[in-house]
Amino acid sequence: MTTTAATPAPGVRGATSEAAARVPHVVIVGAGFGGLRVARALARAPVAVTVVDQHNYHCFLPLLYQVATAGLEPQDIAYPIRAILRRYRNVAFRMARVARADLAGRTLITERGERIGYDHLVVAAGSVTHDFGNPGVAAHAFGLHDIDDARAIRNHVLRLLERAEAMADGPERAALLTLVVVGGGPTGVELAGALAEFRRHVVPRDYRHVRADDLRVLLLEGTDRILGALPERLRQAALSDLAALGVDVRLGTLVGTLDAGAVTLADGARLATHTVIWAAGVKGPPLAAALGLPPGRGGRIAVGATLAVAGHPEVQAIGDVALVAGAEQLPQVAQVAMQQGEHAARNVVRALAGEPPLPFAYRDKGTMATIGRSRAVCHLRGLDLRGRLAWWAWLVVHIVMLIGFRNRLVVLVNWAWNYVTYDRGVRAIVGAGDGRGAP
Amino acid sequence: MTTTAATPAPGVRGATSEAAARVPHVVIVGAGFGGLRVARALARAPVAVTVVDQHNYHCFLPLLYQVATAGLEPQDIAYPIRAILRRYRNVAFRMARVARADLAGRTLITERGERIGYDHLVVAAGSVTHDFGNPGVAAHAFGLHDIDDARAIRNHVLRLLERAEAMADGPERAALLTLVVVGGGPTGVELAGALAEFRRHVVPRDYRHVRADDLRVLLLEGTDRILGALPERLRQAALSDLAALGVDVRLGTLVGTLDAGAVTLADGARLATHTVIWAAGVKGPPLAAALGLPPGRGGRIAVGATLAVAGHPEVQAIGDVALVAGAEQLPQVAQVAMQQGEHAARNVVRALAGEPPLPFAYRDKGTMATIGRSRAVCHLRGLDLRGRLAWWAWLVVHIVMLIGFRNRLVVLVNWAWNYVTYDRGVRAIVGAGDGRGAP
Repeated sequence: MTTTAATPAPGVRGATSEAAARVPHVVIVGAGFGGLRVARALARAPVAVTVVDQHNYHCFLPLLYQVATAGLEPQDIAYPIRAILRRYRNVAFRMARVARADLAGRTLITERGERIGYDHLVVAAGSVTHDFGNPGVAAHAFGLHDIDDARAIRNHVLRLLERAEAMADGPERAALLTLVVVGGGPTGVELAGALAEFRRHVVPRDYRHVRADDLRVLLLEGTDRILGALPERLRQAALSDLAALGVDVRLGTLVGTLDAGAVTLADGARLATHTVIWAAGVKGPPLAAALGLPPGRGGRIAVGATLAVAGHPEVQAIGDVALVAGAEQLPQVAQVAMQQGEHAARNVVRALAGEPPLPFAYRDKGTMATIGRSRAVCHLRGLDLRGRLAWWAWLVVHIVMLIGFRNRLVVLVNWAWNYVTYDRGVRAIVGAGDGRGAP
Repeated sequence: MTTTAATPAPGVRGATSEAAARVPHVVIVGAGFGGLRVARALARAPVAVTVVDQHNYHCFLPLLYQVATAGLEPQDIAYPIRAILRRYRNVAFRMARVARADLAGRTLITERGERIGYDHLVVAAGSVTHDFGNPGVAAHAFGLHDIDDARAIRNHVLRLLERAEAMADGPERAALLTLVVVGGGPTGVELAGALAEFRRHVVPRDYRHVRADDLRVLLLEGTDRILGALPERLRQAALSDLAALGVDVRLGTLVGTLDAGAVTLADGARLATHTVIWAAGVKGPPLAAALGLPPGRGGRIAVGATLAVAGHPEVQAIGDVALVAGAEQLPQVAQVAMQQGEHAARNVVRALAGEPPLPFAYRDKGTMATIGRSRAVCHLRGLDLRGRLAWWAWLVVHIVMLIGFRNRLVVLVNWAWNYVTYDRGVRAIVGAGDGRGAP
């Protein structure tokens, strides 16, 4: 069946009045930071909008590492898309996986074979973990790119600790208690810092035979710096914060191969471990190729300066999945996706009015990363912060960004609890196996 | 390796001083209401205690139905066992699945082959869903007996709604929107009521093409009454509360066969549905048989009036898994398990002092069930409540019972949110498939 505008297939009761009026139909693929911003910006435009996502929730990715380290619940950072879009009368949601597109026919085809027609398409499909062609990564490393990743890491680490608690000292126990994070970007740094705090404050309290020192947290980075987007002074501050927390940071360290029980470095050194978390970069999702749009570096969709695809002015791509001509160096972060989302919506409105699209220009609002309790670095416009003040700035920004009042409240309760007690309240191993079962 | 007392295997650093003193070792299998009560009651006794459970959390089973209907998070009702036991210096925790026992050698053997020696054993292994030999139940019905069950139900129902929202009217859509609960005990009644409230308050708000009336909630009960433990007047109150919420209650209705798309009743009538939740009873877990202890009706362990196993005075069974001679009609509820837990601990202490065990006597403190917002029934000693007052009583009792301050706080936030907004905040479909994928 074919869906047009925000209406369901013919025959479904309650078809909205938009169907009769036949307003243009804008389809947005992906309900991340970028996709939701497009929907919001079109909420008062004379269009019918359908947001399509494989999940029924928006995930607040910047706090994934807190789920991975048992500081927050998965659902604290996952908000139902329907609850977000409810207030926009011309925006509908469809939970589906897009399989491919008929670009000439302006139609998406879902994995179930449903057809979703569009007049304008905005692809905001995000990114996936980039293994840089290393075959061991998919088989033996954890990603940290969605809720299931985060939960798998948490359950895995908690299971390792249970095993180690009941095990005699020796190389196997040492391997169980060695956690390796690969990649010194914000994700890797925040995760390594949170693991180090978990080790310091939770492990000695809960486990009688695992000492904090027994657990090792390593952060491997191939270049000579972590948090490359920050100025030198803040990079050094982050390094010394990590060192103070006991993270073993190894710069200039490239990963060679991974197998079930170890990671082998490019220089041949071998680290026995069952826990490698791969935070070394992202690439475009498989959908980017499946749509038949022009491919760009890193599995992304190549778009022009206006965010439109060459030859298809009715198709735009934004956020992590888009490689913008002339702005190839833009970071794959929420800020870029949100600004591009606003811009894509503006270009849709201009097209409806018969006006040509405008080129996108990024306004950098700054970068921040938290390393631990009262330890963070912020690089804002003309303002560099570190330490406690930066941490509070980080906290406020992230709570304000969290969508949904209830989530803010629950996150606040959890953070306040952690702050007062140095505890992690969320440690139950719930959910199916992580697929990389503890040895 | 063999573990004795609360100490780890030889060679593990930090072995506690109990090991040297060689105090008697009490092993408790299961960290439910009963098992935890034993541990707490022995916290000041001259024994070393080890609690063994396959999960690292205690699950507050009375609120499972709220997780299944998206009112609470899984982790709101799952509290880490280590955090509960931390305060008791002589109590250790071991996360493991017990495979079998060497009763003569007073040793448990885990699935990993580890051996755990004991001087006293308390089996508090709970129960599992009882399918009464109906082969369709395991294949096609959901249980509601652990966290994974509850999450599977929630994800399944939310997926069905997503499907129905995009589907044309007809028999297939009607089947998707038919939810069948089997069993009119407290679990079935509370679940059916919560599903009806979800339908009334959440569905019309989130789904534009699914009307509340499109969703049917049926409660099938084989006997002529629901909540059989309650007096006639409260049973009638519960029935009319369910009717007011729009639950289609069918008494005297026995289930015949289940298949992938329907449930067939004993009288031959066929209900097209993809959602059958089986709350018709429980039986002893497989472990009850695997231990080689005397079997009792319903897959339970037969114990004498003192809770000890015939021929093995050092082994007691409590809670759902125990069938007590002379008290076979005791309900399988938390109150019984907790009182038996206290009693088992007392008998251990008496044995250490060379005193004979005492028989167990149950003090019935009452029964309560909630049907929906401001609708509940309470049968306390000499006091029957219904309606709003009963609901508040239910609320207070359950919050007080919830272990852990943080959990109480989060549950309160969620309930307050629901009460004020009529909303369910927790609707993200997180986690692996439910194994009974939507059609």
